[in-house]
Amino acid sequence: MRYRLLETTSLTRRHLLCLSGAALLAALTRTGRAAVPGPCVLEVDVAVIGAGLSGLVAARHLADSGLKVVVLEARERVGGRTVNQPLGEGLEVDGGGQWVGGDQPMVMALAGDLGVPLVPQYRAGQMAALLGGERYTFDADEPAGDAVRALHLRLQAMAEQVPLEAPWAAPHAEEWDRWSLAAWLRAERADAEAVEAVSTTVATTLNSAPERVSLLWFLFYLHSAGGFAALDDQAQQFRLQGGAQRLSVNLAQQLGPSVLLGAPVRRIEGWDQEAVTLDCALGRIGARRVIVAMMPADMPRIGFAPALPKGRAALQRGWTGGSGMKVHLSYARPFWREAQLSGAGFIDTALVQMTFDSSPSDQGQGVLLAFLDPARAGNNPRKRQARVLKDLMRLFGEEAGRPLAYVEQDWNREPWTAGCVSPLPPGLLSRHGRHLRAPLGNLHWAGSETSPVWCGYLEGAVRAGRRAAEEVLAALRPA
Amino acid sequence: MRYRLLETTSLTRRHLLCLSGAALLAALTRTGRAAVPGPCVLEVDVAVIGAGLSGLVAARHLADSGLKVVVLEARERVGGRTVNQPLGEGLEVDGGGQWVGGDQPMVMALAGDLGVPLVPQYRAGQMAALLGGERYTFDADEPAGDAVRALHLRLQAMAEQVPLEAPWAAPHAEEWDRWSLAAWLRAERADAEAVEAVSTTVATTLNSAPERVSLLWFLFYLHSAGGFAALDDQAQQFRLQGGAQRLSVNLAQQLGPSVLLGAPVRRIEGWDQEAVTLDCALGRIGARRVIVAMMPADMPRIGFAPALPKGRAALQRGWTGGSGMKVHLSYARPFWREAQLSGAGFIDTALVQMTFDSSPSDQGQGVLLAFLDPARAGNNPRKRQARVLKDLMRLFGEEAGRPLAYVEQDWNREPWTAGCVSPLPPGLLSRHGRHLRAPLGNLHWAGSETSPVWCGYLEGAVRAGRRAAEEVLAALRPA
Repeated sequence: MRYRLLETTSLTRRHLLCLSGAALLAALTRTGRAAVPGPCVLEVDVAVIGAGLSGLVAARHLADSGLKVVVLEARERVGGRTVNQPLGEGLEVDGGGQWVGGDQPMVMALAGDLGVPLVPQYRAGQMAALLGGERYTFDADEPAGDAVRALHLRLQAMAEQVPLEAPWAAPHAEEWDRWSLAAWLRAERADAEAVEAVSTTVATTLNSAPERVSLLWFLFYLHSAGGFAALDDQAQQFRLQGGAQRLSVNLAQQLGPSVLLGAPVRRIEGWDQEAVTLDCALGRIGARRVIVAMMPADMPRIGFAPALPKGRAALQRGWTGGSGMKVHLSYARPFWREAQLSGAGFIDTALVQMTFDSSPSDQGQGVLLAFLDPARAGNNPRKRQARVLKDLMRLFGEEAGRPLAYVEQDWNREPWTAGCVSPLPPGLLSRHGRHLRAPLGNLHWAGSETSPVWCGYLEGAVRAGRRAAEEVLAALRPA
Repeated sequence: MRYRLLETTSLTRRHLLCLSGAALLAALTRTGRAAVPGPCVLEVDVAVIGAGLSGLVAARHLADSGLKVVVLEARERVGGRTVNQPLGEGLEVDGGGQWVGGDQPMVMALAGDLGVPLVPQYRAGQMAALLGGERYTFDADEPAGDAVRALHLRLQAMAEQVPLEAPWAAPHAEEWDRWSLAAWLRAERADAEAVEAVSTTVATTLNSAPERVSLLWFLFYLHSAGGFAALDDQAQQFRLQGGAQRLSVNLAQQLGPSVLLGAPVRRIEGWDQEAVTLDCALGRIGARRVIVAMMPADMPRIGFAPALPKGRAALQRGWTGGSGMKVHLSYARPFWREAQLSGAGFIDTALVQMTFDSSPSDQGQGVLLAFLDPARAGNNPRKRQARVLKDLMRLFGEEAGRPLAYVEQDWNREPWTAGCVSPLPPGLLSRHGRHLRAPLGNLHWAGSETSPVWCGYLEGAVRAGRRAAEEVLAALRPA
């Protein structure tokens, strides 16, 4: 295993304060010293596990407060479920999370602070769709029909009964968590068009189907975002120029050598004691507090001594990561706009499920983003590419079949990620949800999934990181 | 007086629905027909007075809801207190309101919907200051001293006692509204450095001094923004690419010919009756409801029959508009960044009070923005320019004295604006504030000053426009 240190740039004076411990570690790694058992090679105030957005936000907040912090990341890159992919000619596209929107003040403020511009999602013109083999175009801002609106209002009213800080304490938590969303819709004899609309929301936000998602979880998720308009629309107003991973890259630059890549944590010992020891390939690291900033489904990779309480372990084991595949294609220009199309499209039964315009803001090249159905993706990259092009040609015409460049991201094949979204099945949230966020000894939990507001989004990641850091500061503050 | 119709572009089907009445008016103006007394030349559901951001947001919301709307604007342009100014080589700078920030979801969502990118405010590097003739540079993110923090916390705790929807109903409203902020600070024997910090906030946000601002108004303004960090920092995280006026220009394009420029309203009759009549130079316009989307200080220009109730009239008469002067200068490149300066600066006793980096995002040209002290501006433009250059050279070196282009905006000389901000004096808010937002017969009030949240900001303008439109929709909805 290689240890690579991030290049240190843009350090301010206050960021330099916290590097003394990491500098020791850096010296160790430069001499190529092998992993050592036994005494700790580094002592810090706080170890953060995971250099995704949430972990890095937590780490920077703690470092800014004068604490000695180390961030341990299994991959060879920062950014977690955000990742930039080159698409030729200097283009960077988002292989992972990419959108922010109106009512997400924390992540938008962070983008401003880090100097990352926000590019509006192109929406002008009509949407294209293939439904039952027929091609349609229509106005995206056409108001929804009465049945859709009625079902939305019904679900939103129920969602508001689910307390964001404790969805497991909702008045009907157990009952609602026994239903799948699909079963509940059937029992309610919901209108077919309205069911279709809700299914589209579940597909776009949770990469899943109403059959596989708990009613309680969906209601919480809906409430966490602020309703259907927020989930379907406001959450996708801006992209981050140069790719969403830039947020994490810029944060990591500020943190400098206290971010260690290629350093998976295997075991955490003594989390119920005064201090805790982390075992990673480099050696043992001592910390007063640990922030685990990962998706719950990824946490069973870490061994804990003593073992975690049953409820917490069950939560981690039962958590479901949803797979997802994104494809980006570049063209000489966004030709679909000339046909008054927005680039947004969907197909009901094909490999390509949804498309969006992801062109850079300078009106030069055109970029299409396609979400694929992982169940239909197959194992042959050449065949898959041919099928993607065929689907796009049916939506946008011949020109869509001749991209300049093509790149895929398959979250199912990412070794350190159980999935890119969290479509929780019935039963988990009401039974074990109470263990999601509650600190445990010296352990604190970050990651977007622990955020009551915009759970699962970049905004949630920032909020969770900040909240976990505040917990640690309160715990370490002299009484 | 000339009547000019905005060019119609980007109309969607639903926007075309509301244009029949305005089309008649357009036909009238094209034949050059003179103003007519007597019967109405146009009947609409809602007349909006003022094509600033707030009025246009209200008008578009009403038009989207299927109502027939006309917007009457005195100037030959839309945008109110936002205005783009050309600075050569295709650059557009903001002569008026320009910043948005993290916790302003409504205006940021609007920018996304209108396709206007957000450019982060450049903040890297040190601030420059001239204090008592000495030049200093320092870190802007250095934490404030204890005395400053203590005074901030004290004022914020008081501000939280001021209800945003009804500041006049605060527990100590009358008492706090008798104090000027300066008198209160003296009575409290506040620390000199802390007083200086609060004075800077008053200067940057209200273009005024603690001597001239009501304590109650300042506390409301502080609460409305969400505290000192919001006022001093978060409100200035992004600029709107291409200038903030683009929001209004894009909205007006969607509204098409229902926006009439060069059409000041002189008189409003029958606001207490079933329908109301507006007298503008073109002729009489009949409306079921009127939204007045102006700064309160500008409203006394309109005659009302019957006369407005005493309290409302007193509120409008007593409202204070704060003058302001902005200067933009362009350079071949943002040379101050090479010296590790952010371009932010301030001077305690000179013509230039504050500066910011307002360079475009593409790292080409550099643009400096300077706020001038109107009391020191003088009447000679050539002398003024020479003094501005001298001040900037003292802050940023010789190169600052050789700009490629120079442009000024003086809100004191704008014929249709009483000022760009609202530094209310003691006495007004507690006595007449209750008339600020309450509908009166068929009259509804928009404009940023009527917003409980982010009063005086672009965010407040959007919220106020939306709220006024909702009031009208509720009033016109069949029972």
